[in-house]
Amino acid sequence: MKPTVYMEEMDAFTYREKLGRDAVVFIPVGALEQHGSHMAMCVDAALTKAMAGATAEALVSETDGALEGIVAAPITYGYRSQQRSGGGFHLTGTTSLSGSTLIALAKDIVYGLIEHGARKIVFMNGHYENYQFIFEGAELALEKARANGVGDVKIQLLSYWDFVDEGTIEALYPEGFTGWDLEHAGVMETSLMLLFYPDLVDMDRIEHPLYDGLPAALPNYDILPIVPGYTPPSGCLSSPEASSREKGAILRNVAVKNMVAAIACEFSGEGDYHEI
Amino acid sequence: MKPTVYMEEMDAFTYREKLGRDAVVFIPVGALEQHGSHMAMCVDAALTKAMAGATAEALVSETDGALEGIVAAPITYGYRSQQRSGGGFHLTGTTSLSGSTLIALAKDIVYGLIEHGARKIVFMNGHYENYQFIFEGAELALEKARANGVGDVKIQLLSYWDFVDEGTIEALYPEGFTGWDLEHAGVMETSLMLLFYPDLVDMDRIEHPLYDGLPAALPNYDILPIVPGYTPPSGCLSSPEASSREKGAILRNVAVKNMVAAIACEFSGEGDYHEI
Amino acid sequence: MKPTVYMEEMDAFTYREKLGRDAVVFIPVGALEQHGSHMAMCVDAALTKAMAGATAEALVSETDGALEGIVAAPITYGYRSQQRSGGGFHLTGTTSLSGSTLIALAKDIVYGLIEHGARKIVFMNGHYENYQFIFEGAELALEKARANGVGDVKIQLLSYWDFVDEGTIEALYPEGFTGWDLEHAGVMETSLMLLFYPDLVDMDRIEHPLYDGLPAALPNYDILPIVPGYTPPSGCLSSPEASSREKGAILRNVAVKNMVAAIACEFSGEGDYHEI
Amino acid sequence: MKPTVYMEEMDAFTYREKLGRDAVVFIPVGALEQHGSHMAMCVDAALTKAMAGATAEALVSETDGALEGIVAAPITYGYRSQQRSGGGFHLTGTTSLSGSTLIALAKDIVYGLIEHGARKIVFMNGHYENYQFIFEGAELALEKARANGVGDVKIQLLSYWDFVDEGTIEALYPEGFTGWDLEHAGVMETSLMLLFYPDLVDMDRIEHPLYDGLPAALPNYDILPIVPGYTPPSGCLSSPEASSREKGAILRNVAVKNMVAAIACEFSGEGDYHEI
Amino acid sequence: MKPTVYMEEMDAFTYREKLGRDAVVFIPVGALEQHGSHMAMCVDAALTKAMAGATAEALVSETDGALEGIVAAPITYGYRSQQRSGGGFHLTGTTSLSGSTLIALAKDIVYGLIEHGARKIVFMNGHYENYQFIFEGAELALEKARANGVGDVKIQLLSYWDFVDEGTIEALYPEGFTGWDLEHAGVMETSLMLLFYPDLVDMDRIEHPLYDGLPAALPNYDILPIVPGYTPPSGCLSSPEASSREKGAILRNVAVKNMVAAIACEFSGEGDYHEI
Amino acid sequence: MKPTVYMEEMDAFTYREKLGRDAVVFIPVGALEQHGSHMAMCVDAALTKAMAGATAEALVSETDGALEGIVAAPITYGYRSQQRSGGGFHLTGTTSLSGSTLIALAKDIVYGLIEHGARKIVFMNGHYENYQFIFEGAELALEKARANGVGDVKIQLLSYWDFVDEGTIEALYPEGFTGWDLEHAGVMETSLMLLFYPDLVDMDRIEHPLYDGLPAALPNYDILPIVPGYTPPSGCLSSPEASSREKGAILRNVAVKNMVAAIACEFSGEGDYHEI
Repeated sequence: MKPTVYMEEMDAFTYREKLGRDAVVFIPVGALEQHGSHMAMCVDAALTKAMAGATAEALVSETDGALEGIVAAPITYGYRSQQRSGGGFHLTGTTSLSGSTLIALAKDIVYGLIEHGARKIVFMNGHYENYQFIFEGAELALEKARANGVGDVKIQLLSYWDFVDEGTIEALYPEGFTGWDLEHAGVMETSLMLLFYPDLVDMDRIEHPLYDGLPAALPNYDILPIVPGYTPPSGCLSSPEASSREKGAILRNVAVKNMVAAIACEFSGEGDYHEI
Repeated sequence: MKPTVYMEEMDAFTYREKLGRDAVVFIPVGALEQHGSHMAMCVDAALTKAMAGATAEALVSETDGALEGIVAAPITYGYRSQQRSGGGFHLTGTTSLSGSTLIALAKDIVYGLIEHGARKIVFMNGHYENYQFIFEGAELALEKARANGVGDVKIQLLSYWDFVDEGTIEALYPEGFTGWDLEHAGVMETSLMLLFYPDLVDMDRIEHPLYDGLPAALPNYDILPIVPGYTPPSGCLSSPEASSREKGAILRNVAVKNMVAAIACEFSGEGDYHEI
Repeated sequence: MKPTVYMEEMDAFTYREKLGRDAVVFIPVGALEQHGSHMAMCVDAALTKAMAGATAEALVSETDGALEGIVAAPITYGYRSQQRSGGGFHLTGTTSLSGSTLIALAKDIVYGLIEHGARKIVFMNGHYENYQFIFEGAELALEKARANGVGDVKIQLLSYWDFVDEGTIEALYPEGFTGWDLEHAGVMETSLMLLFYPDLVDMDRIEHPLYDGLPAALPNYDILPIVPGYTPPSGCLSSPEASSREKGAILRNVAVKNMVAAIACEFSGEGDYHEI
Repeated sequence: MKPTVYMEEMDAFTYREKLGRDAVVFIPVGALEQHGSHMAMCVDAALTKAMAGATAEALVSETDGALEGIVAAPITYGYRSQQRSGGGFHLTGTTSLSGSTLIALAKDIVYGLIEHGARKIVFMNGHYENYQFIFEGAELALEKARANGVGDVKIQLLSYWDFVDEGTIEALYPEGFTGWDLEHAGVMETSLMLLFYPDLVDMDRIEHPLYDGLPAALPNYDILPIVPGYTPPSGCLSSPEASSREKGAILRNVAVKNMVAAIACEFSGEGDYHEI
Repeated sequence: MKPTVYMEEMDAFTYREKLGRDAVVFIPVGALEQHGSHMAMCVDAALTKAMAGATAEALVSETDGALEGIVAAPITYGYRSQQRSGGGFHLTGTTSLSGSTLIALAKDIVYGLIEHGARKIVFMNGHYENYQFIFEGAELALEKARANGVGDVKIQLLSYWDFVDEGTIEALYPEGFTGWDLEHAGVMETSLMLLFYPDLVDMDRIEHPLYDGLPAALPNYDILPIVPGYTPPSGCLSSPEASSREKGAILRNVAVKNMVAAIACEFSGEGDYHEI
Repeated sequence: MKPTVYMEEMDAFTYREKLGRDAVVFIPVGALEQHGSHMAMCVDAALTKAMAGATAEALVSETDGALEGIVAAPITYGYRSQQRSGGGFHLTGTTSLSGSTLIALAKDIVYGLIEHGARKIVFMNGHYENYQFIFEGAELALEKARANGVGDVKIQLLSYWDFVDEGTIEALYPEGFTGWDLEHAGVMETSLMLLFYPDLVDMDRIEHPLYDGLPAALPNYDILPIVPGYTPPSGCLSSPEASSREKGAILRNVAVKNMVAAIACEFSGEGDYHEI
């Protein structure tokens, strides 16, 4: 077995050694969700796992080994896709968890890591709809830890796209940026998939009437039951046309650099982080 | 008893008559949460109730009686205040529900209204952190209704501030708008309180060192347990100094007008609504 | 902002000062429930809030300031109305919570107050059906507090009508008292509404065939699903005809006086309380 | 195997035949709870099972076979004993279920019986504190049944002591009756135990200082955590001294007769039941 | 009241004395489930209660009083009967709990006993399908105990049939043993019922076509919804024909002896236990 | 994107086409659990995913395309590892879900697939402890489906090792087979890992004192809290020494062939399956 940051690919004895050095444990949270006809359905989980891996690796080098990283198995199913950020949970292929299930799952995993001895935890989100539920799960795990006399755990919750700065956004979206919510299956996700998992993208499929009329014009509210007609036929909310592997590399580099700074700032008291 | 849109102040027989005319039922959702030293803690619940009342009244006049409105009793406790949008749930006075409690509460109330015969429901949110939990509760109520053979319910979920348009924002925030999340106890909420509940605001208290250094500079992630030092000492995230009753009236008028359009569009198939 | 016992109308800094003096915190629990055609549906919540307010105010004067009172936001929705005490949860307008929701809500609110530092809590019930569920919620909150090392909380659970003594009952019900359960929308509730919220009562509506045949003759068991025919057409279980604002004042005075004695007895070790 | 009304002692084929004749199924609900030093802890469960058995047997004879009865296995653990009706759940021996567990248990058992084909169900309670939770469980089972297209179930919920009429009470308690709540381990329960399970009663133990000072003088509210000093040292709330097997027989006869009338009235549309 | 190991038949004061001597408390867990036409439906609960009673009695004699035993009220309803071990939960008469209900029930009972002071607990299972759920319930009770500062509880979970050794199996099943799962209503259970509850067995009914074709040939997987045709018409999975009271006595003696050894080994650090 | 049976690597449109042909959907369920020092912690999830993939591929070829297969994203975290089948959930690295979380997760995923239109579902288990919880989750999903009018779903639940026949076991374990439960990190799992993921195995580590004394001698009961000394120091329950890629291929081939037969038998009414 070769060295790795991924807990799934690590044996337990190696994991115990790393954790004995007070490693930061990342929990990637994604979804199994339609992402148009040009990408596989694992996008949210696969990208977040890759971003967490890249961040864990950068963390050790950027901090000269002061902080190590371990990436736990991702949560591969996410909260119900909402129409304004993921096209809607009515779409076949999108396989959603209810709120209480995701809360329970997040709680159990965080608490399990705490029992292992993890005291520095980063919950990295890659599916917009998940955030409040993993926040709740993390809090419930901390409450349980405190009730058991463990009071020194710190959890950082973040969404990786929040670490792409304004300058990068302007450079990558020369025709204007419509917001991270509409980025579902758009330029950011597609570019990152081209970087990390090019076999799971098929850019040829974008030249198709399915992809006309993007970005989607969605109301500033939600309707339940979902009104299917509000979602574009491809399930994408903005056009992935301008995506490229190069943009993926830029996005990864910027986000990883800023996340490393934020993590170092919180977990070592050092680093040089300021809000973007 | 005088005519009212508020269900709490209505007798059951009057309620049944209104519902028999297929009235839109609003559920305001707020919080019991610190709002600095210059405002009472009921802000989120009280404002949402007032905005729902104003919208219900405007709905009947704007639609020439085609749509009536009833405002159910508000949910007065909300989800855990988060540091980036409410200062944090660690602050004494802020009294929070856990995620599963709020989901259950939202579900039961929606389902109760459906059993009464309500088929047009508007969930109006006034505390940012609530949204995902009331969305989940609404969906669970719909699932229960469908399992019981009721398939013709429509629920619209919205946050009232999303209906303040760009032009109004620019006019009211001449020095730049920092986002709705930082508006906690800031100009919008204070102005609306001055309009609806002037007795629950004390503008004199703003002239105080507690209110220095606003708006707050908060990181683009959450930390649990909350780091108290990140929250400004007043608990406000932006300065309420420029608030006025006039701004409150403008905010109300714009938001109500746009909400009426959105509601009419969804529930009568008519109206003239476009996203703001 | 003027001085108040109501937490909703208090700013957080004032609340913290009062709580710093070890104030008794009241949680009123009501319901949103039909109360005939002569009263608004908020009766149980509105009366309990008013009774808690009156008790909180009397507490400070009766104890010469040794005990202060704060009234938290009421729980406005209650457990399913039962036929023998509220006419039944099948009646349109009555909007009920399931048992587990009410338990969770009571638990979260009590625990939130404990986290604020409250150590003296009075759960005041105003809807018969709620009692067992708020008892359970209070116990769960205490269990959570103890698991977190907080062992000095005391909670008093009571229903305000239990503090009306025999003499008063005999005086107010000269033709015989049929029990508190049948008092739903009867003389006690109507008289107190005439006292506290006269605008939400319409005594003229009582002169109507709907109100014939009261008090209701209900079986000494429950049937599920509810047999609608067992509930009188008005939804009232006894006649409100003999109600008056004066009786309301007597009821309030007696109950408040006795509740203050009971609270002082439990929370200051002093006072002069004996069971009624 | 001999004929029996007890489902536990019946083979499945016999049960299916009886249920095929639309038998009434009784679910006895009790508790495992201290009952002083003079009685075993099974009192609430054992008596309710016996009363349900006697009622089931009387039902078939009183209705000339029109209604048969089956007694399901009792729920042997009950809700937390409360100080005013059972001495309190802090007493060693008293083994209590939380509210949500009892709700779930009641729901599952009722729903299981419905799936068997039972359409006439009597929930017979023998532990005061249980009532609201089994009511909730029964309602949840009915909701599940309706969602599955089963709409013809009827459930009757009752407490057996409510069927002892005023005349009997006056005859059996010549020195005055203090209410069913204080009857915990008092004359009613002890007399019925002497009738049904004399081996589980030891009347000699009553002549002991433990039994002085009864009936208990309890406040008209609850305190949590329980104040142990409010409960008499024996755990009994009233004196069992005047108990006798003869009184047990009278109580059984009266209650069974009245329960049969109430059941026949609800389930056959006939019988001759009036409220006691 | 005569001396007994059964908590249900014990008064609270006697129970407290025994527990004061650090008695082992047994919790029998069974089911209410069809067991063919030749046995009553209480088999799993009744046998486990009897086996626990016999083990509790043997424990005191085998350890010369070093370890006493108390048998709590059994859990009389169990998890959904599965086709490969109980014929299936679709069979009328089989009355099943859902997984979360059984978990909650097991948790509450264990935690209740811990609060009484029990530190040595044996969970004795008599219905195969229950095991994982009572394991979970026991763990949750321990977690709650630890959070409350109680860290010295030990729980042993076992199924009584696992203590029948190979030699006995070979002697009792001369034609080959098909496994404990197929023993549902077969030789082991029937023989034990003939020993403990002969009135609840009717061996004459076995001579019937219903009992042809046993043992059942069941697939090595489960199907949901259950395919009724896979279960033999009697509901028994193997033939009870070779059952006898003598075999029952042998089974009891062997299992009790081995369970006593295992319990003594775990709870006194002594004894002479090796895995069978 | 190339053709695949894995839903995660499939785009939504391709998935919809496959499902439109009534494909069998597999849900692999594993765990994140220590597997000694010679294997990565993903074993249970990774192997089950690989076995499900191989089975899905074989299904289409063996049935000449009559049945297609899709493999949903695996459940990567499992129920608490038990000492007798996985070494115990106290071991650092083993990250466990509570019972109710796994039930909820299984329910949501199954129900999500049903909403997509899946009617043929295979739940493939690869972590012994999971089975009862996924059974419960599957049943709850079916109950929800039925309540929503969907009555034609069929779910097959199996553990892949149950499809290795006696002959293969005898051939692969010439020195005797100790049972599937002790196979944790033993010959079967190690051989399959050598076949599917050789990079995640390090056979050199087996030559180490950690691996002495296997197979483990475990009692025939469970103790909670776990007694760490009962688990061998490596965390393996039997020796992986005799493992080889060739044995892995034999195991895969036999199990896949038998699973295909069982699946075809249940889902096409054809095939040639008999119990092993």
